[in-house]
Amino acid sequence: MEIIDCRSIAGGISSNLKEEFDKLSDRLGRPPVLAVVTDGDSKESASYLRSRKKSAEKLGIVVRDITYGSGSTKKEILEIVRKSSSSSEVDGVMVSFPLPFPELTSEVADVIPWNKDVDCINPRNHGLIMENREFVAPATAMSVMKIIESEGVRQGSTVAVVNRSVVIGRPLAMMLLNRNYTPIVCHTKTVDLKGVTQRADVVVVGAGKARLVDASWISEGTTVIDAGINVVDGHVVGDVDQESMSSISGRMTSVPGGVGPVTTQMLFSNLLKCAESQLGNR
Amino acid sequence: MEIIDCRSIAGGISSNLKEEFDKLSDRLGRPPVLAVVTDGDSKESASYLRSRKKSAEKLGIVVRDITYGSGSTKKEILEIVRKSSSSSEVDGVMVSFPLPFPELTSEVADVIPWNKDVDCINPRNHGLIMENREFVAPATAMSVMKIIESEGVRQGSTVAVVNRSVVIGRPLAMMLLNRNYTPIVCHTKTVDLKGVTQRADVVVVGAGKARLVDASWISEGTTVIDAGINVVDGHVVGDVDQESMSSISGRMTSVPGGVGPVTTQMLFSNLLKCAESQLGNR
Repeated sequence: MEIIDCRSIAGGISSNLKEEFDKLSDRLGRPPVLAVVTDGDSKESASYLRSRKKSAEKLGIVVRDITYGSGSTKKEILEIVRKSSSSSEVDGVMVSFPLPFPELTSEVADVIPWNKDVDCINPRNHGLIMENREFVAPATAMSVMKIIESEGVRQGSTVAVVNRSVVIGRPLAMMLLNRNYTPIVCHTKTVDLKGVTQRADVVVVGAGKARLVDASWISEGTTVIDAGINVVDGHVVGDVDQESMSSISGRMTSVPGGVGPVTTQMLFSNLLKCAESQLGNR
Repeated sequence: MEIIDCRSIAGGISSNLKEEFDKLSDRLGRPPVLAVVTDGDSKESASYLRSRKKSAEKLGIVVRDITYGSGSTKKEILEIVRKSSSSSEVDGVMVSFPLPFPELTSEVADVIPWNKDVDCINPRNHGLIMENREFVAPATAMSVMKIIESEGVRQGSTVAVVNRSVVIGRPLAMMLLNRNYTPIVCHTKTVDLKGVTQRADVVVVGAGKARLVDASWISEGTTVIDAGINVVDGHVVGDVDQESMSSISGRMTSVPGGVGPVTTQMLFSNLLKCAESQLGNR
């Protein structure tokens, strides 16, 4: 298989976004601001945040860290999210998951206004995707969608998505319908899963299992999009066994350097939409 | 094919609902009330309303007609919906479609509170279905789901849905995932549509074309659910050619007397959920 040049796709999107953010800054009279609420005691959050910040800076976006401590109560965390969300100097808000209280997730999703919801966790935004009135969408699903579109996949084609989460498979199925593709959403319980992927024109994998998908899952000429991120022996690998794919024709994304870089840009694209929508309302 | 006894499924649901609505009336101190906002000048609305009213009466539900005239402005219609929605003596609100102003649809959807939204048009309720936090759902999609479950279809089975609307195919795909099935959502642009339906374990059709689907679309042993309603020569027929299906094995719903009667009950089931949710909030 040939490797799809996702860094170049990401680069193209980033250039466009840079222009749009410059215009936005002029209109706002200040740089765009993304507030990120994280657990100040989590090392994972901190490292993720650092890498996002670097990409954000290139677009002129200010990332404002808002941290809570490990001793914070539910009420306190919710209040922190509410406060950042209501500030007119914040254009978008996202919260790092997992939260210390799992039951807080849906409450947080209701507190972030739909037009500051850069991570697309508010039910209204999920609903708008289903209604073909997309505003923001989960960044990974958007990234997969961008790659499929940039590959010029024929309308009506079947796209098997091996992931049924609310951040990839579910919204992606609706986004595929919005663009005239034919989605099949698969999961661990799917009967004859390999048969389903073998018959699909495009296979999207986000199964969370390193190198799960080898050439036996895929037919000649298929487009394979790997949304997996696994660490094996200190190396980042996807859910697709890239080596195995070399024996068949088609095009695939690599990990790292595939879905990931485009996903980062999609998050910023959501921020742009949020900021523009708020300007429109003033 | 054998015909699935949907009237019996609907009857069972209706008996359960009757019990629940009796309990609800006791708690409310009054009968449950469904407000239906219709175009007073539309004959179609009136006839639809009459048939729904009869079914509602059996469950002790009061249907309150709220009509606007053909001369009403957008603002007036919106105000009528807002007023019914805010009344504490109304448990659920639905609006007859199409509205005289197409662009009013999304505004009306935002005016009906999510916990009075018996017709499931509010984006939040669509989003909750996607998040596997179903509250209400579109009644036809719920009906199809009920029939599939009552047939005891094996988890993981592939379900091809020939409909991608927001009232059937889209929410149904998410509801199928919520119950461990494998949805494929098809439409007019789907490449090799017949191949897709031939390979599916269950085929749901809502294509809006009388007798479109004949035995050449369907494999032996398939379950076929017909969500079509067409009038041909004064007779109501579905999207499936029932006669043609007699040559192959499997089970199918008929039209009339299939998805329809279950759909009616599902609407009332949504009303029950809405009323109970409001009681819970008091």
